[in-house]
Amino acid sequence: MEQYDEKLHEECGVFGVWSEAGTQVAKDVYYGLLALQHRGQESAGIAVCKTDGPRDIIDRKKDMGLVTEVFSEEDFAKLQGNMGVGHVRYSTTGASNLENAQPLVFHYLKGTLAMVHNGNIVNDEELKMRLFDEGLVLRGTTDSEKVACLIARLRATEPSIEKAAKKAASILKGGYAIILMSPRKIVCMRDPLGLKPLCLGKIPTGYVVASESCALTAVGAEFIRDIEPGEVLTISKKGLESDRELCGSKHAHCVFEYIYFARLDSKIDNISVYSSRFRAGGCLADTYPVEADVVTGVPDSGLAAAAGYADRAGIPFRLAFQKNSYIGRTFIKPTQEERESAVHMKLNVLGDVVRDKRVVLIDDSIVRGTTIARLIRMLKHAGAKEVHVRISSPPFLHPCFYGTDVPETSQLIAKRLSTEEIREKIGADSLGYLKLNDLNTITNGMDICRACFDGNYPTEVYQETE
Amino acid sequence: MEQYDEKLHEECGVFGVWSEAGTQVAKDVYYGLLALQHRGQESAGIAVCKTDGPRDIIDRKKDMGLVTEVFSEEDFAKLQGNMGVGHVRYSTTGASNLENAQPLVFHYLKGTLAMVHNGNIVNDEELKMRLFDEGLVLRGTTDSEKVACLIARLRATEPSIEKAAKKAASILKGGYAIILMSPRKIVCMRDPLGLKPLCLGKIPTGYVVASESCALTAVGAEFIRDIEPGEVLTISKKGLESDRELCGSKHAHCVFEYIYFARLDSKIDNISVYSSRFRAGGCLADTYPVEADVVTGVPDSGLAAAAGYADRAGIPFRLAFQKNSYIGRTFIKPTQEERESAVHMKLNVLGDVVRDKRVVLIDDSIVRGTTIARLIRMLKHAGAKEVHVRISSPPFLHPCFYGTDVPETSQLIAKRLSTEEIREKIGADSLGYLKLNDLNTITNGMDICRACFDGNYPTEVYQETE
Amino acid sequence: MEQYDEKLHEECGVFGVWSEAGTQVAKDVYYGLLALQHRGQESAGIAVCKTDGPRDIIDRKKDMGLVTEVFSEEDFAKLQGNMGVGHVRYSTTGASNLENAQPLVFHYLKGTLAMVHNGNIVNDEELKMRLFDEGLVLRGTTDSEKVACLIARLRATEPSIEKAAKKAASILKGGYAIILMSPRKIVCMRDPLGLKPLCLGKIPTGYVVASESCALTAVGAEFIRDIEPGEVLTISKKGLESDRELCGSKHAHCVFEYIYFARLDSKIDNISVYSSRFRAGGCLADTYPVEADVVTGVPDSGLAAAAGYADRAGIPFRLAFQKNSYIGRTFIKPTQEERESAVHMKLNVLGDVVRDKRVVLIDDSIVRGTTIARLIRMLKHAGAKEVHVRISSPPFLHPCFYGTDVPETSQLIAKRLSTEEIREKIGADSLGYLKLNDLNTITNGMDICRACFDGNYPTEVYQETE
Amino acid sequence: MEQYDEKLHEECGVFGVWSEAGTQVAKDVYYGLLALQHRGQESAGIAVCKTDGPRDIIDRKKDMGLVTEVFSEEDFAKLQGNMGVGHVRYSTTGASNLENAQPLVFHYLKGTLAMVHNGNIVNDEELKMRLFDEGLVLRGTTDSEKVACLIARLRATEPSIEKAAKKAASILKGGYAIILMSPRKIVCMRDPLGLKPLCLGKIPTGYVVASESCALTAVGAEFIRDIEPGEVLTISKKGLESDRELCGSKHAHCVFEYIYFARLDSKIDNISVYSSRFRAGGCLADTYPVEADVVTGVPDSGLAAAAGYADRAGIPFRLAFQKNSYIGRTFIKPTQEERESAVHMKLNVLGDVVRDKRVVLIDDSIVRGTTIARLIRMLKHAGAKEVHVRISSPPFLHPCFYGTDVPETSQLIAKRLSTEEIREKIGADSLGYLKLNDLNTITNGMDICRACFDGNYPTEVYQETE
Repeated sequence: MEQYDEKLHEECGVFGVWSEAGTQVAKDVYYGLLALQHRGQESAGIAVCKTDGPRDIIDRKKDMGLVTEVFSEEDFAKLQGNMGVGHVRYSTTGASNLENAQPLVFHYLKGTLAMVHNGNIVNDEELKMRLFDEGLVLRGTTDSEKVACLIARLRATEPSIEKAAKKAASILKGGYAIILMSPRKIVCMRDPLGLKPLCLGKIPTGYVVASESCALTAVGAEFIRDIEPGEVLTISKKGLESDRELCGSKHAHCVFEYIYFARLDSKIDNISVYSSRFRAGGCLADTYPVEADVVTGVPDSGLAAAAGYADRAGIPFRLAFQKNSYIGRTFIKPTQEERESAVHMKLNVLGDVVRDKRVVLIDDSIVRGTTIARLIRMLKHAGAKEVHVRISSPPFLHPCFYGTDVPETSQLIAKRLSTEEIREKIGADSLGYLKLNDLNTITNGMDICRACFDGNYPTEVYQETE
Repeated sequence: MEQYDEKLHEECGVFGVWSEAGTQVAKDVYYGLLALQHRGQESAGIAVCKTDGPRDIIDRKKDMGLVTEVFSEEDFAKLQGNMGVGHVRYSTTGASNLENAQPLVFHYLKGTLAMVHNGNIVNDEELKMRLFDEGLVLRGTTDSEKVACLIARLRATEPSIEKAAKKAASILKGGYAIILMSPRKIVCMRDPLGLKPLCLGKIPTGYVVASESCALTAVGAEFIRDIEPGEVLTISKKGLESDRELCGSKHAHCVFEYIYFARLDSKIDNISVYSSRFRAGGCLADTYPVEADVVTGVPDSGLAAAAGYADRAGIPFRLAFQKNSYIGRTFIKPTQEERESAVHMKLNVLGDVVRDKRVVLIDDSIVRGTTIARLIRMLKHAGAKEVHVRISSPPFLHPCFYGTDVPETSQLIAKRLSTEEIREKIGADSLGYLKLNDLNTITNGMDICRACFDGNYPTEVYQETE
Repeated sequence: MEQYDEKLHEECGVFGVWSEAGTQVAKDVYYGLLALQHRGQESAGIAVCKTDGPRDIIDRKKDMGLVTEVFSEEDFAKLQGNMGVGHVRYSTTGASNLENAQPLVFHYLKGTLAMVHNGNIVNDEELKMRLFDEGLVLRGTTDSEKVACLIARLRATEPSIEKAAKKAASILKGGYAIILMSPRKIVCMRDPLGLKPLCLGKIPTGYVVASESCALTAVGAEFIRDIEPGEVLTISKKGLESDRELCGSKHAHCVFEYIYFARLDSKIDNISVYSSRFRAGGCLADTYPVEADVVTGVPDSGLAAAAGYADRAGIPFRLAFQKNSYIGRTFIKPTQEERESAVHMKLNVLGDVVRDKRVVLIDDSIVRGTTIARLIRMLKHAGAKEVHVRISSPPFLHPCFYGTDVPETSQLIAKRLSTEEIREKIGADSLGYLKLNDLNTITNGMDICRACFDGNYPTEVYQETE
Repeated sequence: MEQYDEKLHEECGVFGVWSEAGTQVAKDVYYGLLALQHRGQESAGIAVCKTDGPRDIIDRKKDMGLVTEVFSEEDFAKLQGNMGVGHVRYSTTGASNLENAQPLVFHYLKGTLAMVHNGNIVNDEELKMRLFDEGLVLRGTTDSEKVACLIARLRATEPSIEKAAKKAASILKGGYAIILMSPRKIVCMRDPLGLKPLCLGKIPTGYVVASESCALTAVGAEFIRDIEPGEVLTISKKGLESDRELCGSKHAHCVFEYIYFARLDSKIDNISVYSSRFRAGGCLADTYPVEADVVTGVPDSGLAAAAGYADRAGIPFRLAFQKNSYIGRTFIKPTQEERESAVHMKLNVLGDVVRDKRVVLIDDSIVRGTTIARLIRMLKHAGAKEVHVRISSPPFLHPCFYGTDVPETSQLIAKRLSTEEIREKIGADSLGYLKLNDLNTITNGMDICRACFDGNYPTEVYQETE
């Protein structure tokens, strides 16, 4: 059930494009960002540059809001260039301001630099002190600015921006997918563990990079491959140049991309998001079979797993909820004293689908448990005889240090209650979570980071001060 | 496939509430309108009144835009009252301005009057001349203002507003669902043919009326019954008073409410919208069986019929499209020269669902045929071996005079081409439309208006000049 | 001292233009309204029409706000026509909404009608009952709508719009300047007493009418003459046609136009506003001579009288206040606890001008007395040895029923205190008001309405209920 | 004649306040900026900080627009602090964006730093290379950011922020008035030549600094003294601490502050702006006497000199123009083909003042000459027999490198034409400019920078590349 307050939030989506001199790419970045909008709805920005123009001219527009709110037709008259980067951002309240919105643009010894960044640097504090000790001055509070400053400084002693990027990568710890736009080239880098996704596509006049392959599709690009964990890829007039020196064998791909973050029509590190969710449904059907009449999912994030469960269990898959797509950010929520809840406004049960039926209800995760409890009540009120809940991920128990916004641990229901207690509290007739080992099944045995479920972090972590 | 340029548009949704003196209803109207937003996205308005206040004070806010755009928290501090009416409107371009947005408010001999109206009066021109001859002056160009003026004038010689409303009903021709707010009561009226829907619900402190039952659910009201065609229902301190003198035996309920306009979770004239669409899918499976691997629907309007087809045919129902819910009215469409089409941005195929599969694709209607053609191309490009299109309504051939916005006849593909020609043009492997007679099956034999399919209009019609 | 909360407010300015078919007049109306903006800052609107177009097409834009806020470049692409009317409005809070903003546009038996109106109809209630009895329905609460409806109704039995206007004039009581735009002509009417101003100008392609001559200048029009009190003037392809049947010999021109409302560069009923104020200063110098070093005025409304005083008294005229022109409607006023007052922010004393000087300070009127008291304190704090206040109007004692917004009588300082008591309260060294008889001097002996000073109303008046 | 396109523009106004812990200063900054709005209308910003709060929390709001447009009531709920700085900015188009708007806020080794800056650093390019060589990364393109970075870097080796500021001052060349807000104190610095103004005032709970004394008055502060050229003044819990090591004997106060930039009611470096302009008028009367009937000035900037001329020449001073104060930035200018000019809309002649008169017209400067030419034509058209123009500054001939925005030299009329040729071109009967030597008279012999008139720059200057 997407975009509800209950849910975890990805923090960003990035997009970049390099095209032949003389072409215009700003609209491509726009369409790419639209396809990545689910990764961040708080701010959006585009920066473009001409590879045959002056080295210090970058045109940029960024603002708070959705992509369609930030950009209007006239903006594209001003955003002229054949290279571009774009960014959509979700952010926790405190640091949510325009200064921190991306793309960031910098002026330094070698000209200009634009940067977009998805992820989180865990040695952010260490990095800040290193930069401050060297006399650097920062304008905002994001780790992104620190990374850009680090790269810019390293460029002073490194022969190229891509070498500086690689040097920075050897210093940075955490998860990141970064696209840099230097006056003549695009440089992409992905953290050596592969925590954050980044993929490459081809258009007739050049190349496109994006957080997810659905953004390649949106601009008509052909998917080539994922950027390798640790790879530094340069796109310029010379074509593609790849530096894989930092690529290692230990990977830790974020499993939550498959469970919830990524769009169903994306493929990440060779695994289709749809298929992995469909398989999760199958695993749940194997582990927790139940006699039932209909399988449904919480829109939209539980639907693919529901189809998988239905397929394995041989029970019909049906849509049981009507969604109100007009309820967005400016919706005025009913107060406590008023009759209705926000969940009720956003979803309503289709009584004909569930009346007198035993229902299997699939959702991707339970964070606080309040939403699923309301949905179960709604189903029963509409006549469902039984509601069997299946969750396509294990219980959520640990914070994420790599860029996912998670509520305080004390608010995680699985931290406080047993599965049976949760079942009782939410009013389900049965409740089953995906088994930890099945995470490997759904990701085809790939190396994954599943620290939010088992607490085994793939990097050192630093306690956050805030 | 909702909200695309191709689709027909309903023109309005209405909502009214009467609650005990001292209670506040503006927020209820707000939530009711949110649930009716699919019936009109161009303007929204709320008017409220206190039954124990002065007879000439009505507070109103109306503006162009979506319900969530028009109203902010502070508006509700000003909209004080225990009776209220609300309106959402879609309108064709010409007359689309704030003056015509509803609720309309009038001052006349007996005090004030607010009105909301869904539908279209076919003897509008006759009515205008009658009013002009009597010396009336109009401010806007809508038939709604004329209806209100007619009622207000008739009130001079009729003993009550509900009697004036009934008298007006004997003059008006066409389809309408009207809610009047007089200083002390709410009066509802529905055209004698029942072309436009209107239903009644109960809340602890009073009553609610709405175009669709989903709006009753949204405010926690209990569904009581539909307003009868021809009925004039008055809600006041005395409770409900019904005048059924104009109720006749000839009905003509708009079948397009079931096919496309109404929300799936609504029940209209005792027929569930979901069930009627589900049955349409069953009819299509009976009429046009085909060997296939998966059944899917065009989101969101084809999904219920797809489930019905799947159920009858014993083929799995699956979701095959990923929808981008962030593409709204301000989306900048790609130009012809750019790579992508708007359809492509809004929907993307889930390759895993259709690859190497024979696909049955259900949509509710074909107007111009361009969207369905693109979707078929997308499915085939994603690997679908065959695409069999089933349309859950008959070919659309005739204009509507009762409030539905229809393209010029020359743009209706079914007017120009045979079914086989359409099939070829859109690139489907087979194509089947719902049979005319099945319209009766899906509406359980109820009297319906199906003039858009067969040209038999239930009233006189007047050629529109514009 | 204009625009301060203390001041009286004129309620409207009107503008109209008729030009040859094929020309465009919307921008002229815009510039005309800009020149009349001092007469009303709350809403602005323009309606235009083509004399060779269909009889029922009028394009209009109106909104709350200043002229420059309401209109943007793109509006003028839509406002196409060779005839136009415009309106700026100030209104007391209650009825201040868009529905009441002008131009009003009406549809009736004979086509369309647009109307702009400055003034107030004193038999408004009588008029309303007459219209209601005839079955009319009103949309707003202004007397303007009632006047328009009356004219439209009368048109049914009168042979032309100008005849209907004249017939209406025989029914209306009060002060008004009205410009009607019928599909083929502009009709102007002014109340028989001449309470409200209206003048005529010539442009190469036609004619212009406006509340004040400064608006003629703004569009490069040549001043021809004032519309006569009681005159109905029609401008059409046939040129000017004047109907003077209702013109009488008893006039009552509003003297406050000269004292405060009108712009200094306007000439009304053959009297220059600047000259009348300059003469008022002379009268004050004759009546209340004083030994002084410098004469100054409260910006901007006291400056012309100050020059007149200086001229007569042979004392230098100087500007003694610096005005902050950036403080507009959105200025956040300091709270009581904060150090500064709004007056202080808007005006600051130029110490060099008044230090150790005996100052004569001229203002146009005293309503509540708080502003003048603050200014005197500021002057003394800056070193003025004496401050002698001269007011270029008599004490304000009675309400206005003809369109001027006046505070409740209880708030009028002259109603409660003698001149000597006021002098003491405001801290002036001497205080003199213009003598009643001098009102005739400053207006060259013309028949004037000075009811706000002497209570002799030129028409019956009806006690206002609100 | 202020705010017209013809005029030179000052680039900024700065304001700062230090008050006891627990007090709130944001509103004071707001009122201070309102009083400085004439120094810059493009962007406005306020940053506040608590001296007893964490060292890294600064709250800031800045945006494009006027002070009253940028700030609304709710902003002040968020801007909590007992120290604050504010800024208004005018900027040439290129670099006009939000990133460059001030206050700038920085994070560095010692915590946070907010800065506001008026002026221009002439060794900007040198400074940039120095910073880049040291590895610094910049976000914007202003010299202000470079100055802040320089100070922050120097702080690493200097024992306090005020010492770092002084060290920076020894490196910077040009004109500047800077206010720094460090977590515990306010540090002010003024360039050693005194090119840019900065003064100090006292409020009961602390101190205020501002570009002009009118901003002190606006917040009820008592004027103490000007910050000395070269002085670094620190305001903290310890009171005032002044470091005058860099104060020298060579000064070069910008004479244009007196001629045009500063507000009439300000006193800068012990010279009243009003008096200096009044004296300029006297000088003009001495140098260019003429037989005339009335002396007037172009509103508002020529009025004080006009009074001075009148005083010396014994000719009455009168206001001859009516200004339309509703014409602001969003005013839609008439096109070439339309009848009127922007000047005509903004100013209209008061015919009664000039008819059949010999007029002396004073303006502060002539840049391109188009505005004065139109005004002369308007005066003559209104009946003036003669128009004698007196300009209260010498001919403008050279660019300014210290923060004043000047048109390209080729557009300066005095660069191309002799005084007699200018007189003929603008249509004046006589024309006289203030003599160079009189600049000393009007500034009481103080050391001034008059490079824009004589080309003698008080510092090295670097040719600007752009």
